[in-house]
Amino acid sequence: MIIQLDSNITGAQLKRLKEKLKEIAYKTTHVSTQYSDYIIGVGKREFDIRAIGTMPGIRDIHRVSDDYKLVSKKWRVEDTAIRLNEDIEIGTGHFTLMAGPCSIESEEQIEKTIAHLARNGVRIMRGGVYKPRSSPYSFRGLGIDGLKLWYEKAHAAGIKIITEVMMVEQIEDMAGYVDIFQVGARNSQNFNLLDALGEVDKPVLLKRGISGTIDELLQAAEYIFSNGNERIMLCERGIRSYETAYRNTMDINAIAMLKEKTHLPVIADPSHGIGLRRFVSPVALAAVMAGADGVILEVHEQPEKAFSDGQQTLSFPEAERLYKRLRQAFELRETF
Amino acid sequence: MIIQLDSNITGAQLKRLKEKLKEIAYKTTHVSTQYSDYIIGVGKREFDIRAIGTMPGIRDIHRVSDDYKLVSKKWRVEDTAIRLNEDIEIGTGHFTLMAGPCSIESEEQIEKTIAHLARNGVRIMRGGVYKPRSSPYSFRGLGIDGLKLWYEKAHAAGIKIITEVMMVEQIEDMAGYVDIFQVGARNSQNFNLLDALGEVDKPVLLKRGISGTIDELLQAAEYIFSNGNERIMLCERGIRSYETAYRNTMDINAIAMLKEKTHLPVIADPSHGIGLRRFVSPVALAAVMAGADGVILEVHEQPEKAFSDGQQTLSFPEAERLYKRLRQAFELRETF
Amino acid sequence: MIIQLDSNITGAQLKRLKEKLKEIAYKTTHVSTQYSDYIIGVGKREFDIRAIGTMPGIRDIHRVSDDYKLVSKKWRVEDTAIRLNEDIEIGTGHFTLMAGPCSIESEEQIEKTIAHLARNGVRIMRGGVYKPRSSPYSFRGLGIDGLKLWYEKAHAAGIKIITEVMMVEQIEDMAGYVDIFQVGARNSQNFNLLDALGEVDKPVLLKRGISGTIDELLQAAEYIFSNGNERIMLCERGIRSYETAYRNTMDINAIAMLKEKTHLPVIADPSHGIGLRRFVSPVALAAVMAGADGVILEVHEQPEKAFSDGQQTLSFPEAERLYKRLRQAFELRETF
Amino acid sequence: MIIQLDSNITGAQLKRLKEKLKEIAYKTTHVSTQYSDYIIGVGKREFDIRAIGTMPGIRDIHRVSDDYKLVSKKWRVEDTAIRLNEDIEIGTGHFTLMAGPCSIESEEQIEKTIAHLARNGVRIMRGGVYKPRSSPYSFRGLGIDGLKLWYEKAHAAGIKIITEVMMVEQIEDMAGYVDIFQVGARNSQNFNLLDALGEVDKPVLLKRGISGTIDELLQAAEYIFSNGNERIMLCERGIRSYETAYRNTMDINAIAMLKEKTHLPVIADPSHGIGLRRFVSPVALAAVMAGADGVILEVHEQPEKAFSDGQQTLSFPEAERLYKRLRQAFELRETF
Repeated sequence: MIIQLDSNITGAQLKRLKEKLKEIAYKTTHVSTQYSDYIIGVGKREFDIRAIGTMPGIRDIHRVSDDYKLVSKKWRVEDTAIRLNEDIEIGTGHFTLMAGPCSIESEEQIEKTIAHLARNGVRIMRGGVYKPRSSPYSFRGLGIDGLKLWYEKAHAAGIKIITEVMMVEQIEDMAGYVDIFQVGARNSQNFNLLDALGEVDKPVLLKRGISGTIDELLQAAEYIFSNGNERIMLCERGIRSYETAYRNTMDINAIAMLKEKTHLPVIADPSHGIGLRRFVSPVALAAVMAGADGVILEVHEQPEKAFSDGQQTLSFPEAERLYKRLRQAFELRETF
Repeated sequence: MIIQLDSNITGAQLKRLKEKLKEIAYKTTHVSTQYSDYIIGVGKREFDIRAIGTMPGIRDIHRVSDDYKLVSKKWRVEDTAIRLNEDIEIGTGHFTLMAGPCSIESEEQIEKTIAHLARNGVRIMRGGVYKPRSSPYSFRGLGIDGLKLWYEKAHAAGIKIITEVMMVEQIEDMAGYVDIFQVGARNSQNFNLLDALGEVDKPVLLKRGISGTIDELLQAAEYIFSNGNERIMLCERGIRSYETAYRNTMDINAIAMLKEKTHLPVIADPSHGIGLRRFVSPVALAAVMAGADGVILEVHEQPEKAFSDGQQTLSFPEAERLYKRLRQAFELRETF
Repeated sequence: MIIQLDSNITGAQLKRLKEKLKEIAYKTTHVSTQYSDYIIGVGKREFDIRAIGTMPGIRDIHRVSDDYKLVSKKWRVEDTAIRLNEDIEIGTGHFTLMAGPCSIESEEQIEKTIAHLARNGVRIMRGGVYKPRSSPYSFRGLGIDGLKLWYEKAHAAGIKIITEVMMVEQIEDMAGYVDIFQVGARNSQNFNLLDALGEVDKPVLLKRGISGTIDELLQAAEYIFSNGNERIMLCERGIRSYETAYRNTMDINAIAMLKEKTHLPVIADPSHGIGLRRFVSPVALAAVMAGADGVILEVHEQPEKAFSDGQQTLSFPEAERLYKRLRQAFELRETF
Repeated sequence: MIIQLDSNITGAQLKRLKEKLKEIAYKTTHVSTQYSDYIIGVGKREFDIRAIGTMPGIRDIHRVSDDYKLVSKKWRVEDTAIRLNEDIEIGTGHFTLMAGPCSIESEEQIEKTIAHLARNGVRIMRGGVYKPRSSPYSFRGLGIDGLKLWYEKAHAAGIKIITEVMMVEQIEDMAGYVDIFQVGARNSQNFNLLDALGEVDKPVLLKRGISGTIDELLQAAEYIFSNGNERIMLCERGIRSYETAYRNTMDINAIAMLKEKTHLPVIADPSHGIGLRRFVSPVALAAVMAGADGVILEVHEQPEKAFSDGQQTLSFPEAERLYKRLRQAFELRETF
């Protein structure tokens, strides 16, 4: 059960509400986000929802039987938009493109990518400064200095940035230079990191785990929301299957289903979703047709020279062709 | 190695060719289809392809290193079309819709479905008369009598039919009443059935196995082709993954990749691909955008009363809406 | 619901029973095996089982809610043994070893393998004469002539043989030269083949599908049983998972669970279960400890020269060491 | 390439070595553990290993082509033992049992479990004080106070404890009250946590990821080792597969293969490996037979009342029976 509180609920009213819930043996969690306050009640007893809904200080009440609550569309029927500034919004009929290299490598690379994005009307740049790498002997990214340089140049060009955060300790340092925090697939159930991102008023793009279920993804989002941050996007990036012909298996079903289960925006990552450059384009287009609110792409001026993941990275001309097609596909879909 | 023979190659020329291949220790298979004759050579020794290519009686020669040969695009660069009659063609820029119930149930059901398809310009009707069922105690279909009735009514309305064949012994009886033979996922490696379908001059739609790889699907098609039948379509119908939120996981990657690896048409089956009626539409649209040459759909006048699989079956109005959208999506894709 | 009939039930009694079941809206299947007659009733209505159980001509009655019925341990609580002759029994405290090459290759190979088995007290020889091969250009086995030669030599040495049958048409020809029919993983849901094997009074070893569930395996066995043949063994041979370090992933859980769900013997196939020769031994031992009634192994005098699957084939000395250990492990397990 | 340094290598010798490696374009990492110093060289050029191996200050040199190096058996051929105190050793012929509840719940529960373990000669107690939970609304464990209480009581009884650490910040607080740090499946690629555990001189039990590969597990261990901590155990705890009959699919193959690939001890977790109490025993026995150096088990005085995971938790009498059998199975295996 989710109870949204009136912003002017009194202490006495709140106390009365909690007592009432205790009477019916519901365990409660008080959630306070940048936008509102909620009481989440978990219990099994049958009760008359009107007896609670008519109490003073309550704005709204809903039964939600899933393990996730606040991210559910059963509760919030209208889709949620995430506003980055006055003219960039994600979700609810806006089509979002994010593109950039796997790793931030150099000043020159940053500048060239920014120019490419600006030319194509892409407003959000992706890139890694902390890289999760399977081997401890691999390059792990330029770190905070790379981030600062990148942020400065991107903002000068009016471009927002999204980058991965890997541990709680990095959040504070990064927060001043990041527009969207990304949680990678390997950290999709790093619950402490999710908790901590709930305490920041920055949008979070949460990737599905390498073999994460739809339900686990939504519960991970619930961690962030219930710790205070409502600004969450979900990202389908391919799952691990038995098929070895591609790096991952893009789960198009997940996109269709997430759009029904949650009010949060859903972004598709076809670069990881198939992991092979020459198929990124059809997979991206499919994702849009299945309902994605946006697409995040790996692009590089010289894919074959990219620091890592060059195999799945588009060249600038390939990306340009794809941006146009994606916008056309999105437009067609919106007429349906 | 694939060697396509001239239609007027002489016995002596053929003998000389086979001797030549024996000299370089290549094992040969003579393939004779409804359209042409081929020698497939499998061996490891390096050789000068021109020394063979310039022999008399040879039309074309190609190296193909994959385990599948004749179905490979490395050999036949142009896509193959399958012509059902003067005005129905599958593949090569034609968009194909196939729709109908899971099981053929009754004369009334056949008539209503035909009327629905005719109204919507759908030229191929699907339906099962032999049903593969997990339990021996389930309904296994109306059999050959149902097929004859169905065939008669469909052909009277100018509609072609596709239905599943489950065993070699059924082929002869069915052949007079079938336009396209379907091989189901559970029989995708029933090699004797594939062999036997190679000897029939009817198109075959071959479904990917429940956890079949791309490579296994192409090798299964090679069985049919190398036994004499070039008229093959491949069908992606979802794979078995760890995710239990849907019946199968539609593998959109496979569609994109098959279009690169083979010249055969690729059909998508979103009904089985997700297995939940309310998501069939976005998944079907995604499949078209990823490159599918056509879509096969389960429809029923009253999905909730369908003999089986009602869960994934569209109602007529839902299907009508989808046919239109699929055609629009296909048209947009063709402009790319 | 399973109703076992008295062997001397009268026609009138049987008629009365079926009427009774019709009254409560149960769909019935009459099963007649080499050992007994059964009525399988499938329906939903609640009823008093005693009202049926006390009718004349009925030996036993049980409710079984699973989709499989006759193979369930809920019905037949005691494990079933399969007797090959007066001194070879499979299941119920007997430990069974089956070993031999992937493919039957030559007279010499047959003789050497038989000598090896005889030396080690292994009473059942495995080998393929019809081979399911992914590629149509691969060797498909020696066929019926190879089978006859093999059968003659094995029986002269007092050794039984098990070999794979791939299609209905082969059964009649093979039946005179086979002691146990094997159904391969790719045919685990070839329902017509299962039906046909139900009509033969020969034991059948049924392999789990490449990504078959426990439930599907049991339902496949139900096909054979309900068509008249009670002499069935199940075989765990590894499943397809995301892990590429081995050919298949041996599912030890399945062995433990099958021993609870069914009264049929369970055989482990560690050669396919891991697919790498140097690990066959630990995996085989694990399977015995988990509850397997027997083990089927690939052995060859010169594994590196075996026609196929040499990678997972043990040499004679390796196999000898393993037979001894398996017997010791089985003995220890029996004390638990 | 791994170069183990002499403990008395001089600064000049080390400098010369690094120059030499730079000449052949090898990227080097200096690893300094509680036991020794190593230079890891990663590069592609061919070189004469003797030219380096004979330089002064070098104790040993090996080529290791895998992505993991120091944890590889190619480098350290002898298995590694982990000594907890003068009489508790893990690996190298010692059989290790660890048992305890999913969650530490109360003083009474701790005492009863300790008494049970002491009675049965089990020297290591497992239990969670920080619990990774899919839902933010679930109980997350007693935390540091629970840990202190538990540690005190266990040590008074001569029992060591193993518990999960979830984030870098917890390490320092926990270190004084933990004998073995456990890294859970969800954190198996939390590289910052792995780095930090490399800086602690406490043994670490590293669980395989929910769908982690053998290779990823070994690379995760390499993170810990290369940051300075050689005291690592690996743990197979079941993988995510398509089969839904059990919570996870115990991967017995992994145990057999890990024992070949690494010198580190390998522990099996059958409780999670199958997730169903009545099958924990056969799966545990299988794991020992496949080569596990030890087993970690969930036990509780009243499984049905356990805080979580009661489904897979053994009662004390069940556990007692299993300990004995596991020891017998281990003894038999050691004779092979």
